[in-house]
Amino acid sequence: MAKYSKKRSKKAGLPPGALIHIGEKKTEEVKITIVEYDETHLREQEVKTIEECFPFKDKNRPTVAWINIDGIHQGEILGKLGESFGLHPLIVEDILNTDQRPKIEDFEEYHYIVLKMLQFQGNDGEIVTDQVSLILGTNYVISFQEKAFDIFHAIRERIRTNKGRMRKMGADYLAYCLLDAIVDNYFTIMETLGEKIESLEYELVSNPSPQMAHTIYNLKRNLILLRRSVWPLREVISRLERGESLLIKESTRIYLKDVYDHTIHIIDTLETFREMATEMLEIYLSNINNKLNNVIKVLTLIATIFMPLTLITGIYGMNFKYIPELSWRWGYPMVMLVMAGVGAAMVYYFKKKKW
Amino acid sequence: MAKYSKKRSKKAGLPPGALIHIGEKKTEEVKITIVEYDETHLREQEVKTIEECFPFKDKNRPTVAWINIDGIHQGEILGKLGESFGLHPLIVEDILNTDQRPKIEDFEEYHYIVLKMLQFQGNDGEIVTDQVSLILGTNYVISFQEKAFDIFHAIRERIRTNKGRMRKMGADYLAYCLLDAIVDNYFTIMETLGEKIESLEYELVSNPSPQMAHTIYNLKRNLILLRRSVWPLREVISRLERGESLLIKESTRIYLKDVYDHTIHIIDTLETFREMATEMLEIYLSNINNKLNNVIKVLTLIATIFMPLTLITGIYGMNFKYIPELSWRWGYPMVMLVMAGVGAAMVYYFKKKKW
Amino acid sequence: MAKYSKKRSKKAGLPPGALIHIGEKKTEEVKITIVEYDETHLREQEVKTIEECFPFKDKNRPTVAWINIDGIHQGEILGKLGESFGLHPLIVEDILNTDQRPKIEDFEEYHYIVLKMLQFQGNDGEIVTDQVSLILGTNYVISFQEKAFDIFHAIRERIRTNKGRMRKMGADYLAYCLLDAIVDNYFTIMETLGEKIESLEYELVSNPSPQMAHTIYNLKRNLILLRRSVWPLREVISRLERGESLLIKESTRIYLKDVYDHTIHIIDTLETFREMATEMLEIYLSNINNKLNNVIKVLTLIATIFMPLTLITGIYGMNFKYIPELSWRWGYPMVMLVMAGVGAAMVYYFKKKKW
Amino acid sequence: MAKYSKKRSKKAGLPPGALIHIGEKKTEEVKITIVEYDETHLREQEVKTIEECFPFKDKNRPTVAWINIDGIHQGEILGKLGESFGLHPLIVEDILNTDQRPKIEDFEEYHYIVLKMLQFQGNDGEIVTDQVSLILGTNYVISFQEKAFDIFHAIRERIRTNKGRMRKMGADYLAYCLLDAIVDNYFTIMETLGEKIESLEYELVSNPSPQMAHTIYNLKRNLILLRRSVWPLREVISRLERGESLLIKESTRIYLKDVYDHTIHIIDTLETFREMATEMLEIYLSNINNKLNNVIKVLTLIATIFMPLTLITGIYGMNFKYIPELSWRWGYPMVMLVMAGVGAAMVYYFKKKKW
Amino acid sequence: MAKYSKKRSKKAGLPPGALIHIGEKKTEEVKITIVEYDETHLREQEVKTIEECFPFKDKNRPTVAWINIDGIHQGEILGKLGESFGLHPLIVEDILNTDQRPKIEDFEEYHYIVLKMLQFQGNDGEIVTDQVSLILGTNYVISFQEKAFDIFHAIRERIRTNKGRMRKMGADYLAYCLLDAIVDNYFTIMETLGEKIESLEYELVSNPSPQMAHTIYNLKRNLILLRRSVWPLREVISRLERGESLLIKESTRIYLKDVYDHTIHIIDTLETFREMATEMLEIYLSNINNKLNNVIKVLTLIATIFMPLTLITGIYGMNFKYIPELSWRWGYPMVMLVMAGVGAAMVYYFKKKKW
Repeated sequence: MAKYSKKRSKKAGLPPGALIHIGEKKTEEVKITIVEYDETHLREQEVKTIEECFPFKDKNRPTVAWINIDGIHQGEILGKLGESFGLHPLIVEDILNTDQRPKIEDFEEYHYIVLKMLQFQGNDGEIVTDQVSLILGTNYVISFQEKAFDIFHAIRERIRTNKGRMRKMGADYLAYCLLDAIVDNYFTIMETLGEKIESLEYELVSNPSPQMAHTIYNLKRNLILLRRSVWPLREVISRLERGESLLIKESTRIYLKDVYDHTIHIIDTLETFREMATEMLEIYLSNINNKLNNVIKVLTLIATIFMPLTLITGIYGMNFKYIPELSWRWGYPMVMLVMAGVGAAMVYYFKKKKW
Repeated sequence: MAKYSKKRSKKAGLPPGALIHIGEKKTEEVKITIVEYDETHLREQEVKTIEECFPFKDKNRPTVAWINIDGIHQGEILGKLGESFGLHPLIVEDILNTDQRPKIEDFEEYHYIVLKMLQFQGNDGEIVTDQVSLILGTNYVISFQEKAFDIFHAIRERIRTNKGRMRKMGADYLAYCLLDAIVDNYFTIMETLGEKIESLEYELVSNPSPQMAHTIYNLKRNLILLRRSVWPLREVISRLERGESLLIKESTRIYLKDVYDHTIHIIDTLETFREMATEMLEIYLSNINNKLNNVIKVLTLIATIFMPLTLITGIYGMNFKYIPELSWRWGYPMVMLVMAGVGAAMVYYFKKKKW
Repeated sequence: MAKYSKKRSKKAGLPPGALIHIGEKKTEEVKITIVEYDETHLREQEVKTIEECFPFKDKNRPTVAWINIDGIHQGEILGKLGESFGLHPLIVEDILNTDQRPKIEDFEEYHYIVLKMLQFQGNDGEIVTDQVSLILGTNYVISFQEKAFDIFHAIRERIRTNKGRMRKMGADYLAYCLLDAIVDNYFTIMETLGEKIESLEYELVSNPSPQMAHTIYNLKRNLILLRRSVWPLREVISRLERGESLLIKESTRIYLKDVYDHTIHIIDTLETFREMATEMLEIYLSNINNKLNNVIKVLTLIATIFMPLTLITGIYGMNFKYIPELSWRWGYPMVMLVMAGVGAAMVYYFKKKKW
Repeated sequence: MAKYSKKRSKKAGLPPGALIHIGEKKTEEVKITIVEYDETHLREQEVKTIEECFPFKDKNRPTVAWINIDGIHQGEILGKLGESFGLHPLIVEDILNTDQRPKIEDFEEYHYIVLKMLQFQGNDGEIVTDQVSLILGTNYVISFQEKAFDIFHAIRERIRTNKGRMRKMGADYLAYCLLDAIVDNYFTIMETLGEKIESLEYELVSNPSPQMAHTIYNLKRNLILLRRSVWPLREVISRLERGESLLIKESTRIYLKDVYDHTIHIIDTLETFREMATEMLEIYLSNINNKLNNVIKVLTLIATIFMPLTLITGIYGMNFKYIPELSWRWGYPMVMLVMAGVGAAMVYYFKKKKW
Repeated sequence: MAKYSKKRSKKAGLPPGALIHIGEKKTEEVKITIVEYDETHLREQEVKTIEECFPFKDKNRPTVAWINIDGIHQGEILGKLGESFGLHPLIVEDILNTDQRPKIEDFEEYHYIVLKMLQFQGNDGEIVTDQVSLILGTNYVISFQEKAFDIFHAIRERIRTNKGRMRKMGADYLAYCLLDAIVDNYFTIMETLGEKIESLEYELVSNPSPQMAHTIYNLKRNLILLRRSVWPLREVISRLERGESLLIKESTRIYLKDVYDHTIHIIDTLETFREMATEMLEIYLSNINNKLNNVIKVLTLIATIFMPLTLITGIYGMNFKYIPELSWRWGYPMVMLVMAGVGAAMVYYFKKKKW
């Protein structure tokens, strides 16, 4: 599996607008849920066929409709939806292609927004992404999810219980809420990464192990991948907020400004984390070097102490006939004393030089 | 505790404007002090209930009021204040959330400014931040502090004693004074860091210890964190100073320009410090390498001198029946001389090669 | 052969517009194919002389003509073509010079676009480039290819079979299709590189070999060369898409926007890959350092254990007349035990220090 | 002493405009000299009291006056001057504060320019800075110097001797001359640094010593500090030259353009020097590594040659009763030959492997 | 000699416009050649006195004149020329000062362009620069060269032989040709550097020697110096080409655009080369580390095999009276077998661990 770029190549040569799903193949059914509400009414339903969604495209309908589609691996469903809602074929193609960069496309009748949901997975804390597409029309929002993380659960709950602002506002506010939920999800990711950095910092001082390099590498890779999702998001939200669109009401703009500030905050933290990870790696490398230094010092110490002593024993092990010392009565103890003295002098010398 | 990003995740899924305090939990009372002054009058008081602050929102009141709120962990107090002063719910939410990036929000009736106070804490000189929020209205300034560093003491003193400019100018000048106090505080931080760099530079030449790497890491981390507070500040002050706001009088603008210059100066120094810390780390690493080199040279020297000598003693320690040298009268002293000669030659050779 | 910059020097001193082919010399014939189509008709032919292409320059001809020229090493053919179609001499020179940076030149009557096709070649995965030039006129597209990769095969197929959109649209849509084919080709390259990075990541953890450094170097070099082709492409497509040209119809613009998004996506991935390769190299270097550390530890261990033992044997190998231990009945076993004890103590000490 | 940021903290909490001198304390007198000139007249004098300078503020005076003030540690003198010449209190504060970033402040009546003079000091070639402030009025220039480097001597000389352009032009040309003198001083600094780089390059090839790292560090630090002075200067001169000011005459503009070009040239050279210093450090580190490699090779060679030989002597030093070789007639010479052979083989092997 | 910045300091303190030649002193005569041509006529001459050039400043003269001045070390000649052709004194100063950054100065009557010619010199491939200044007037071009590389030879030849475009076009086209010749010269430099990189790449894989670091350093230094000449050139040509000048005719603009594209191409290649050189240095460093690793492995292997064997011989070399093995009949062969076994086991162990 190509982890870092999905198999787009199978589309090479096809005409634009070809409805080929790019991403992991799935066999489950596509799940379509509709929430329709205004200040006083609320209707939730799960529909079986895409055709049941078509009435909501009517601009004059007084309610707000939220159509959520879990699973985008069935191109023909999206094809019909696109045709009915008047989506450009390239947009439908983009929804199916899960290897998109976050972006926004403005049409007169609707906005198309692509975003990335992120989640940690597995033991080594790899980040997996889930592409979320939004179509914002006059009085409807269609959301497409690749996988079934139920990230919009809290919003559905808020629509149900909270009779206040949410139900009074239009489809643009709903779209804001969905964006906000995704950005809040990034904060959760950042917190986990922040905790990882903190524990790495602690480990760096207390007990730098060779595994640290790989942990730092994983951290940096996650930050690099995260950045790919967050940087373009900034542009997306900025364009929504700057207010050139008629689909976004003035009252919603301040909320979008708030999400924008959050995005900037996440980018800021991300860059800080990247710099800290870089610094940590450097300090880790200097630690390894220091350790090496210490090991070699021990080796040198050992060699420096034992080599002269071994030489002395070698000298008195020679078989010359005339070595006067060998026949001295106290020759042996004297040599032992000399050796002890030489050894002690070495140790003293190294201690003094603060080795 | 998540040191590098506060637990925003507990807000994930809540509607915008939810008054949840993000930061360390506290149990002390919130302390509210009011200073009201004009050129001739001065009234200072500490109030118990937030309702006592409400009269100051009156635009026609001839005095300037400074409401200082120490402690922001009680959402309901801020909620009431916000409602009374007409603050947008998202602003009140931002005041409570102490994990903000410095920013300014312009409304017709008031400006909202978020800033960061910094202080060194503990032995390893970690920097802790305190979020300061300001609301600047026509004739009032409300300041919110997370912790109880009394950073605005000097300003209070100046209002009390100095009957001059301060008391003659409006709320915008008061806001400038508060901003200036915070930027002056950054200069203090920079000085401490500058002294640390200087002592590191000295240590680098005189006695580079393995702890240095960690000191440099701490320094760099502090600079990274500092930058997160100072860079956005530049934007904040620039927007105030460029003068698109009616709340800032022309005469105050030159003072804001001065604070702006100070901010640029701090950013400049910060970047210089960062570069110097990077250079120092590199030089430190080259020092470690040099040390390693020297230790290995000693080892090589020892081995090179003693190995041939030990070989010689080994040769004459062999038990061959017919080794003519062994029975020579002066064999032993001759061998000793040869060994001394070999050793001296080695030492001479290494000296000459400038090892 | 100068791999990184082609021999332009042979043109130094020549007047501008000199029709000298810069690139590898070739001897094959230049192959010219013409596809002429509109919604109902289709005519494909391979022509022998360039003069047969001249009728297609007529603006009032109702069909779209695609003239594809394989091989650009015969300057005189291009010279005639240029003269007939009214191309500026510098443009003809640029088509011949295969060492061009991707660019677009706008003239009133036509656009000149230079692009780079890329392909992996050989065992070490070197990337080779093929320069593709396009001339887009009112109702014709002329494409020039340096080498004979048949990259436009799929498009020819689509013209033949698909009676739909392709045949209904004009020359601008054909030009878009050719651009799209080239950008799709980049996705294929990116996928291969992504897989290489993944396998490198795996190798980094499991078994970092010295060859890895060279593999990473090759990867980085490929990314550097790729960037040279892709970055300017962004500008080229952006200028086409922004729509200052009369040759591009409004309906084609959204397709160009799509290609533009793809280019941004490729650039993004490219930069991500570059960062990951850089990180990998750093981790690889830290791995080498760790390995070195481990080897030296083994050496130190060996020396530390055996040197004292050897010293002991040296002591009892001395030939002093009066060494009392030598004549003890259990002297030999005792010394052996002492040596075993010393060795065991060393091993225990190192184990405890977690070497 | 805080070398890298001066003690601004003693001003923390003071109102803006407080006349506190920030910099080294001095006890010498402030020296005030006045040069008044027009095409035909010239009057130079050293005055005792600041009051004698006040008449020159008169706009209608036909002469140009240059007031030079050496020493800015007496706040009250500047206070009086500022009041008389109508300088804003913040400007007077800035003149006193020697920890300024180069900048220009435009007022209707005058420009305030802060610049940095640089000089090498001491053996390790540390760069010290001297802050120079200029006030440019309609027909006067006031210059303030912190230290007594007589950098403006040449200009004074030119006014005295040269009856030509200088004396015919106004105060703006005088200001240009002062700026030019400061920028010329930077060229001198750059030359010295350029020579240092050249000698470092030579040393790098011929004899890289461990001190080199520190020399490179000093060089880089100087370049970092230099950059802090030169980068903002570019902005300052650019703003003067772009000509939004009425105080600068059209004829002077081309001279300012020339100074601007010089500043760009210095910045360019500075960045080049920085890059070269970075490269040199890297090469130096690779040299250290190569040296280490060589030393370890020697060690390995020694060990590899002597260890087998020592083993052989050990074997024939064993005391077994039945070692047939020991009693051979030519045993000893044979063993010696074998040892010589083994040693020679080793040396040959290493030579062949090009160690 | 200051290689990296020429002795401008001798000008410090002089008034602007002082005609001091900055560069290497020379004693040869200045050589002045004039080529005057129009479509039908051509006159070439070498003149002795600068006064003979003065007639060509006449705007109404129907011919184009190219005055080439080799050698700029005689200030007074340029002074006279400048006065006669109405050049600003600062321009004449700039022509004399060979330490200029490439730039263009626009005056109403003429353009002043400074460029750098580059050439390899000596064995280590150092790049030397030659400053070329151009004055482009209505119907004349004056070119100034510092050294006598005959770079404009080909153009002179083209004027002589080619009766075509060159002779029909004006002075602006001549200026373009001179610019083009200089940019073509850069391509030659780039090719040489490209070949150097290629051979370095080959060496990196096959046989990385310690000299490589210095070769890479030289390469990088050359690239740094080259960049200083090429980057500003881009600006110069861009300003000429954007067409704000009346001296450049519309028909010449497309040729300037072509030179501009070449400059971009060179910058692009330059940056690519810089990145490749950086990568190569890193790989080279990792190679050194790998080598070190291998050497230390050999050392460890040797020590690990021989130390236990030496210990065994030491044990049986001890002089204890009661060592039963010593008197065994097959003791010696047995010990030899044990030693062989131990050695073989070690070698097997290391082989298995893939050392």
